[in-house]
Amino acid sequence: MLGLMQHHPLLLSSLIEHACVSHPDAQIVSRTVERTIHRCTYADVGRRSKQVANALDALGVKPGGCIGTLAWNGYRHMELYFGVSGAGSVLHTINPRLFAEQIEFIINDAQDEYLFFDLTFTDLIRQLAPRLKTVKAFIALCSPEDMPDLELHNLLCYEQLIAHQSETFEWPQLDENSASSLCYTSGTTGNPKGVLYSHRSSVLHSMVSCMASGFSLSVEDSILVVVPMFHVNAWGMPYSGALSGAKLVLPGPALDGASLYSLMRDERVTMALGVPTVWMTLQQHAESTGCIPREELCLNRVVIGGAAAPRTVVERFEMAFNARVVHAWGMTEMSPLGTVCHPLPKHLEHGLDQRLDLQSKQGRALFGVAMKITDEEGRQLPRDGVTFGNLKVKGPWITRAYFGKEHEMIVDAEGWFDTGDIATIDADGYMQITDRAKDVIKSGGEWISSIDLENATLQHPAVAEAAVIGVVHEKWQERPLLIVVLRQGQDTTGEALLLHLSEKVARWWLPDDVVFVDSLPHTSTGKLQKMDLRSKYRDHLVTR
Amino acid sequence: MLGLMQHHPLLLSSLIEHACVSHPDAQIVSRTVERTIHRCTYADVGRRSKQVANALDALGVKPGGCIGTLAWNGYRHMELYFGVSGAGSVLHTINPRLFAEQIEFIINDAQDEYLFFDLTFTDLIRQLAPRLKTVKAFIALCSPEDMPDLELHNLLCYEQLIAHQSETFEWPQLDENSASSLCYTSGTTGNPKGVLYSHRSSVLHSMVSCMASGFSLSVEDSILVVVPMFHVNAWGMPYSGALSGAKLVLPGPALDGASLYSLMRDERVTMALGVPTVWMTLQQHAESTGCIPREELCLNRVVIGGAAAPRTVVERFEMAFNARVVHAWGMTEMSPLGTVCHPLPKHLEHGLDQRLDLQSKQGRALFGVAMKITDEEGRQLPRDGVTFGNLKVKGPWITRAYFGKEHEMIVDAEGWFDTGDIATIDADGYMQITDRAKDVIKSGGEWISSIDLENATLQHPAVAEAAVIGVVHEKWQERPLLIVVLRQGQDTTGEALLLHLSEKVARWWLPDDVVFVDSLPHTSTGKLQKMDLRSKYRDHLVTR
Repeated sequence: MLGLMQHHPLLLSSLIEHACVSHPDAQIVSRTVERTIHRCTYADVGRRSKQVANALDALGVKPGGCIGTLAWNGYRHMELYFGVSGAGSVLHTINPRLFAEQIEFIINDAQDEYLFFDLTFTDLIRQLAPRLKTVKAFIALCSPEDMPDLELHNLLCYEQLIAHQSETFEWPQLDENSASSLCYTSGTTGNPKGVLYSHRSSVLHSMVSCMASGFSLSVEDSILVVVPMFHVNAWGMPYSGALSGAKLVLPGPALDGASLYSLMRDERVTMALGVPTVWMTLQQHAESTGCIPREELCLNRVVIGGAAAPRTVVERFEMAFNARVVHAWGMTEMSPLGTVCHPLPKHLEHGLDQRLDLQSKQGRALFGVAMKITDEEGRQLPRDGVTFGNLKVKGPWITRAYFGKEHEMIVDAEGWFDTGDIATIDADGYMQITDRAKDVIKSGGEWISSIDLENATLQHPAVAEAAVIGVVHEKWQERPLLIVVLRQGQDTTGEALLLHLSEKVARWWLPDDVVFVDSLPHTSTGKLQKMDLRSKYRDHLVTR
Repeated sequence: MLGLMQHHPLLLSSLIEHACVSHPDAQIVSRTVERTIHRCTYADVGRRSKQVANALDALGVKPGGCIGTLAWNGYRHMELYFGVSGAGSVLHTINPRLFAEQIEFIINDAQDEYLFFDLTFTDLIRQLAPRLKTVKAFIALCSPEDMPDLELHNLLCYEQLIAHQSETFEWPQLDENSASSLCYTSGTTGNPKGVLYSHRSSVLHSMVSCMASGFSLSVEDSILVVVPMFHVNAWGMPYSGALSGAKLVLPGPALDGASLYSLMRDERVTMALGVPTVWMTLQQHAESTGCIPREELCLNRVVIGGAAAPRTVVERFEMAFNARVVHAWGMTEMSPLGTVCHPLPKHLEHGLDQRLDLQSKQGRALFGVAMKITDEEGRQLPRDGVTFGNLKVKGPWITRAYFGKEHEMIVDAEGWFDTGDIATIDADGYMQITDRAKDVIKSGGEWISSIDLENATLQHPAVAEAAVIGVVHEKWQERPLLIVVLRQGQDTTGEALLLHLSEKVARWWLPDDVVFVDSLPHTSTGKLQKMDLRSKYRDHLVTR
């Protein structure tokens, strides 16, 4: 027997419609490419996104057509978020930090029909344009007087494109499973793979991210969105902003400490989201300029994703900024939110040490995300907070196949997606990543977490950065090797570091050797590039 | 083009599963029929709801079968909420305050297969049993030693029924549009009509009610659910409690001021939900016993629904309890939530008077609920906060047809459901009910709000209760008549009351006469019974 409730699809257009009706005056503050501050409201974004939808219609874009963007966080990008997806087309946000060859591959793979770009990327467009097979026109996100000097026959101006379009547009009542946007993962091997979100998945994800178990978003918030809008829809913030009525502060290309700090102060930011390096940069800015964030800012929480922030960073940040550091974990394949780390009431009596231990975990699964850990044979492992295994997830905002590879299921027979992470889960559901599956060290049939060893090493005052990799060992197959960058002006020895570690980890986890280097390799998104280290040090123990 | 996200239906079973994984230890505190305090956790409810599901299976209940409950707010009722709906059957919660004939009608209409009842209702069951055509067995919600003295061949004991059932049950992956529960409206005319909720509608409703624009529910909350679980699923609280991990405090049949107050104090209640009379009762309890709620309680918000609380009640309650009064508005047909009244940031600077004005409104529409006002010809009226018209709504948790009348659509061609309320909506989306459509006074083609007149009258210190109805007038078709109950020991005249009103409403709104009575008639759910007044006073002006 079916219920007798009304049928209404979950659509992204309903988010901006809701914003226009319920909090039309809530602000979107953008730092533009020209470094000026631009202010508009959700009502403005709603109106102009309808002009975008009419413009796409005039350009002949059909439902399901892909529209690319190479753009920073800003109001015009917001307008495209709602205008493109709302009209039934697919918003394809492209990461400009990828190599040009990857960007070329991505745009051709998605068959983008039009490409909207910020002026920052004019040179990139000049370089790419001849090699893009499907793009009918390039649209510069600017006013006519700012048009770039680009000799392209198919160059359009955004403001001109939408200027004469009607502000009236009837959002189509799409199937809620229709594709809404596309984002490619910057995988470390092979070509990038596209994740194709749906209206339903994006709306459900937004609803959950507004809840207290997510980010408790409300009209009283002012949110600095440092995470880029070309990276998993900025963790869904343009959508959940519209849903909650929170003021959004979009920093454009100016991601240095001084620029972000002034936005936080001037726009009375209450919450900010980004990867750990952002918060280290901000902290350094505060220290070097002598400003006093805990007095000058209204910040009350900072969401860290993309990678775990070291415990020391969390502690220092909380002291200086008087804001709670909240770890969130997810993946491009997960829209991205999987877990958020909030304390339970029973944790509130904990001392600082225990609290920081809890906060260093990735947190509990949001409603909608099922999560388990398994051994190598796929058997479920206990939720005891100690046993670690392959982390698998399922849920309505988790992908089942990559774009263009609809028939290659990336979930198992029971629907589980293997995250490639190694993690523990405790009895309250707190998950903690202990390693990437490819980084975990397999020593004599037992697993050693490279991340745990790195974090323990980082607690030594002389250490600036540390990497632990598994290297070939004749007896144990693999053993850990510790590679360390020292802080400027600091000195220590390998023996001293191993002694330091011996107080923090099991004896058989202790690295077999310590190597000191001047720097460690990183990926374009700032993550440790362990693949390079492994190929360089693979035989370190057998040949030394 | 469809997105490539995983398919997972929105099911009520996923709420309790989430609770068991993410906040297994959060508490459900119940005052039992025997007046003892019972404590259990979401993990317990999860386990026992699976025993319920297995018991239903053993009884031969098939998906879609209706299971009736005549029960107060308590943990066993919670178990039925998840066990019955989770297994794919339909939970039919029955309002025991209806007349026995109505209850008989409802149970036969729903074709309830089994009927679970609290011992309070033993006499009612004795009376009804012979007339219930479809009920195969009556299950007393108690332990074997408490079984009632009822001579029925088909009487079962709840604890016995589930005791030997397995705590393992695989919740079926139902179509999310499957019926989950059924609740009859206590209409003032004709037979009660059933509203058949779906899993999808109930889950979406729960998600939105957890958000800041709803009730900001979190693991840090302790929620006193005074609104009955037989009334629109207690405004969805059993579901949103499981979703958010809030502690639930279920008061059973003890709804007097002293019982509720002690629960609030002992269980450190942060939020409470109920109809206005509950809060008046509590206030009177506090005044008469000399306790100091603002010091003794942790209450920070009180949600009032079912009817608007008079401004003076709001003001007094906030003073005494130091908790914000939040108006919510909805209907059985709306699951029930339509609007919740929270201030926007710009209102925070307002003084007390303006703030109370705002709080007396019903609030802004939740995400998912579209809302408009129209004139009698169906033309949309402006959102100016002054113009009032017929309030119409649509959304995924609003019904489209009544149970058993699937083919009689109760929405118009565009999908709008007429609420039967008369309201204004302002530019920020705040809706205010000015009247029920049947109560609005139509004077010479213009409308006069009976509710506005009643509220203005209630501000007079001598008035305990007031009703304004439209009565026949030779020239104006209808004119307002004011009917007043004075406070004990107070005295005033009709002239004095009209003088009082003349400072608050337009001159042409002033009632043509004032009648003093000892009491006013109420419905079984405590609402003013204006129908009776209208038939009694219909010709008051023409015959006087």
